[in-house]
Amino acid sequence: MINWKNMDTLASYQELQASERVDLAAVIAGENGAERVRNYSVPMGEGLAFNYGARPVDDKILATLSKFAEEAQLTEKFAALYNGEVINTGEKRRVLHHMCRGQLGEAVIADGVDKRDFYVGEQKKIAEFANKVHSGEITNANGEKFTTVCQIGIGGSDLGPRAMYLALENWAKVNNTLKMKAAFISNVDPDDAAGVLCTLDLPHSLFVLVSKSGTTLETLTNESFVKDALTKAGLNPSNHMVAVTSETSPLAKSADYLAAFFMDDYIGGRYSSTSGVGGCVLSLAFGPEVFAQFLDGAAEADKLAKNEDLLQNPAMLDALIGVYERNVLGMQNTAVLPYSQALSRFPAHLQQLDMESNGKSVNRFGEPVSYATGPVIFGEPGTNGQHSFYQLLHQGTDIIPLQFVGFKNSQMGSDVLIQGSTSQQKLCANVAAQIVAFACGKDDENANKKFEGGRPSSIIIGEKLTPAALGALLAHFENKVMYQGFAWNLNSFDQEGVQLGKVLAKKVLAHETDGALKVYSDLLNI
Amino acid sequence: MINWKNMDTLASYQELQASERVDLAAVIAGENGAERVRNYSVPMGEGLAFNYGARPVDDKILATLSKFAEEAQLTEKFAALYNGEVINTGEKRRVLHHMCRGQLGEAVIADGVDKRDFYVGEQKKIAEFANKVHSGEITNANGEKFTTVCQIGIGGSDLGPRAMYLALENWAKVNNTLKMKAAFISNVDPDDAAGVLCTLDLPHSLFVLVSKSGTTLETLTNESFVKDALTKAGLNPSNHMVAVTSETSPLAKSADYLAAFFMDDYIGGRYSSTSGVGGCVLSLAFGPEVFAQFLDGAAEADKLAKNEDLLQNPAMLDALIGVYERNVLGMQNTAVLPYSQALSRFPAHLQQLDMESNGKSVNRFGEPVSYATGPVIFGEPGTNGQHSFYQLLHQGTDIIPLQFVGFKNSQMGSDVLIQGSTSQQKLCANVAAQIVAFACGKDDENANKKFEGGRPSSIIIGEKLTPAALGALLAHFENKVMYQGFAWNLNSFDQEGVQLGKVLAKKVLAHETDGALKVYSDLLNI
Repeated sequence: MINWKNMDTLASYQELQASERVDLAAVIAGENGAERVRNYSVPMGEGLAFNYGARPVDDKILATLSKFAEEAQLTEKFAALYNGEVINTGEKRRVLHHMCRGQLGEAVIADGVDKRDFYVGEQKKIAEFANKVHSGEITNANGEKFTTVCQIGIGGSDLGPRAMYLALENWAKVNNTLKMKAAFISNVDPDDAAGVLCTLDLPHSLFVLVSKSGTTLETLTNESFVKDALTKAGLNPSNHMVAVTSETSPLAKSADYLAAFFMDDYIGGRYSSTSGVGGCVLSLAFGPEVFAQFLDGAAEADKLAKNEDLLQNPAMLDALIGVYERNVLGMQNTAVLPYSQALSRFPAHLQQLDMESNGKSVNRFGEPVSYATGPVIFGEPGTNGQHSFYQLLHQGTDIIPLQFVGFKNSQMGSDVLIQGSTSQQKLCANVAAQIVAFACGKDDENANKKFEGGRPSSIIIGEKLTPAALGALLAHFENKVMYQGFAWNLNSFDQEGVQLGKVLAKKVLAHETDGALKVYSDLLNI
Repeated sequence: MINWKNMDTLASYQELQASERVDLAAVIAGENGAERVRNYSVPMGEGLAFNYGARPVDDKILATLSKFAEEAQLTEKFAALYNGEVINTGEKRRVLHHMCRGQLGEAVIADGVDKRDFYVGEQKKIAEFANKVHSGEITNANGEKFTTVCQIGIGGSDLGPRAMYLALENWAKVNNTLKMKAAFISNVDPDDAAGVLCTLDLPHSLFVLVSKSGTTLETLTNESFVKDALTKAGLNPSNHMVAVTSETSPLAKSADYLAAFFMDDYIGGRYSSTSGVGGCVLSLAFGPEVFAQFLDGAAEADKLAKNEDLLQNPAMLDALIGVYERNVLGMQNTAVLPYSQALSRFPAHLQQLDMESNGKSVNRFGEPVSYATGPVIFGEPGTNGQHSFYQLLHQGTDIIPLQFVGFKNSQMGSDVLIQGSTSQQKLCANVAAQIVAFACGKDDENANKKFEGGRPSSIIIGEKLTPAALGALLAHFENKVMYQGFAWNLNSFDQEGVQLGKVLAKKVLAHETDGALKVYSDLLNI
């Protein structure tokens, strides 16, 4: 029997609040610090490890976090989720994105079908389609191969797939598996579609329209933009478009598309990178085998996330240390800092994943909570960030927990030796140095050159950013966000906060406004 | 006589703390709200206006902010800055980036030269060089024109110029003034250089190496990467590279470059977009006339920033309302949300500009301050952000002030009419709707669908994102950050917080580590 309780009603939470704080600079120092860093590490799958040596916890706090995990029934809640309970209470939906990459628990039969079979079936359809495009069995009207795939989608249909594509583009190039270059159109700003379209070779471009409901206004508008451009170029749009949507959407059985691939209401947009939403564009770009490796990596991380032992469950551990930082230490933000240019848009995806899931003030029963929930997430790749906002991270008046990501090896293997070290070594040296600089600080008689230290971070270390490692990395954060939502007793799977803006925007376009809204509309010439 | 005092010693600051709070939802409502939005607007130059109707101030608080501006001598401090005083006390330097775009006050003679003449002289050299490249007078060794320019730089030598290039790329395309496509290499991650290089047509590429000191390790490493690639392609690197650096740097008189253009220590990296750092790549990409328009726009905004009347000085007004939100209302972050895809990297530039300038805990005399300083800055273009992190902005447990930017017209002029409105109208309708949704909220008996409102925002509205409008927009934020630094009594022009990481990274590369740092280095295989 699962109890869904607010965090502040739990005895272990009170114990956490009363816990003795860790002096990070002190525990990181000397040989004890070295030992701590060696020990505070847990495998994440696919050669990745989550190292929390520089997070502000110690064995005692970890023991209390373990109690908290047990008292809050966190792994039971995860089991309820993957066994198909209606976890998204607001929208009365199951939450089944894990099932796109594996069977974690019991079969889930819903709408008369085994959902795992359904998701695997759609993956197979996509793989077959992609293989036919790559082999030249499916071509444009002139019998020429498609060379580019362009995704039209917004939010979860854009950020995740785009971040994943960018993460693997260069890897695919050097591994001879970049089958098609990908582009993305998302914003309703007409300059987005117009700007992307003028870089595309239209006769050889295939567009993937992604909208679960089939009614997302931005996406349908951009589809129209693209169809206009195709028509003007003398092409028949229906030869150049596929749809990824739900079976009940208006797009599902339209003759406007070469093919349609299906998802369902149990895959939330921000959790859809491993469904057809990511699968179609990524399979076309890199081949279905690469997408399958990506899914395998995610599945491996999912299995680790089932572990009841907090210290063997990297996602739950990351989540609960984050809750400790947020609700006990009072830290408001989290920076995500990948030392990997390929992950340039990964923080933007996590921004949606995390902030849209847990940026809420009511619990899963719709009752206001009296504690802070999801933090602001932001980040850029290191070393770029070092030359930008790290000044504030080191010496600003707020302390911001940091999540570093680093890989021992580059993706492309091309490098130069300057001043006795390669670029890859410099990259890794920088992230190692930053962790210690943030944690330990440095005294100086000139206060302007003083670093207080005590600024917490963790690092995820991998061998190389491969498709499987990327899958594990993505699933880690998805599961972390899920566990934080459970801890805060939120429904992490709805997004009622986006509704009001939509309603008012419609009023503006219908000229049904008065007061301030009318003035803003007039100022913007609508 | 200027007094540099900590903010909390000022009488007007105490008055601010005691001010009656504004109920934003109440003051925005009804006809009074409409009137307020009409009135709370100030021109920013180049057709832009700063509208603060939805910021949490009223006439009384604005009057106190005016007192504060006077008591803190903000415009006198700006005058001291542009008249050449040593405002960057830590590094004992003048701060002269405004002079790249105009003469705001007295001539500044330093190092034996009139600095304005120096900056204009370098601009002319760059313009002449760019014209020769465009006309074909300067070519590759085969006499063929260069078609691409690639900037090699990091931090201020990357973020600003890159954001400005992206902001104008599509505008330039439709105005037939895209002379050369631009690319950027910044990260020491070898996959950054390798990834960009494999997209370039090397025989027709010109590289701009930007490093003020001529010693930035990331940049020199990437230069070497590029030189290797050029050499391997059978090209002589010195025919393909120019340098932007200081006259005293090791790069200044090297035969390795086709040309060298100079800046000096009085232009901070994050304030260097209007110097040769931005000027070289932007003049090559768009032509010197376009860069000159950009400077004119910045100069117009600078002039407005001199105004002693707070209500006629948009940069100072934006700054002080921000200080009020940060230090009186206790808000920790600021989101920058341009409803313009062209401004996709503008928030990343502002992140550096703001967080590196004011993310500090000591005042300009090196004494600890006892109030919060620079906030975390983050943002993505709307409408993308709406489908991502806006959930937290609307319903999260923290209130985050928002800075919207919107334009009445698109840059490319290409559009579609769907459901009775164009994409541009939809874009503008969304930002208008969001402002009101955030400020007013909406009650609902289902607490999950309730919006508390009271979430402040301002909007900068322009006709179109032209080079001049972009210049005004950039200068507005530069001057806003400067004024906030003055208010907090910081030195906004040094960045001591980036030093410790550099020192430790060198130790790692030299294998001179022990304790935790050695463990992290080992884990990362260095």
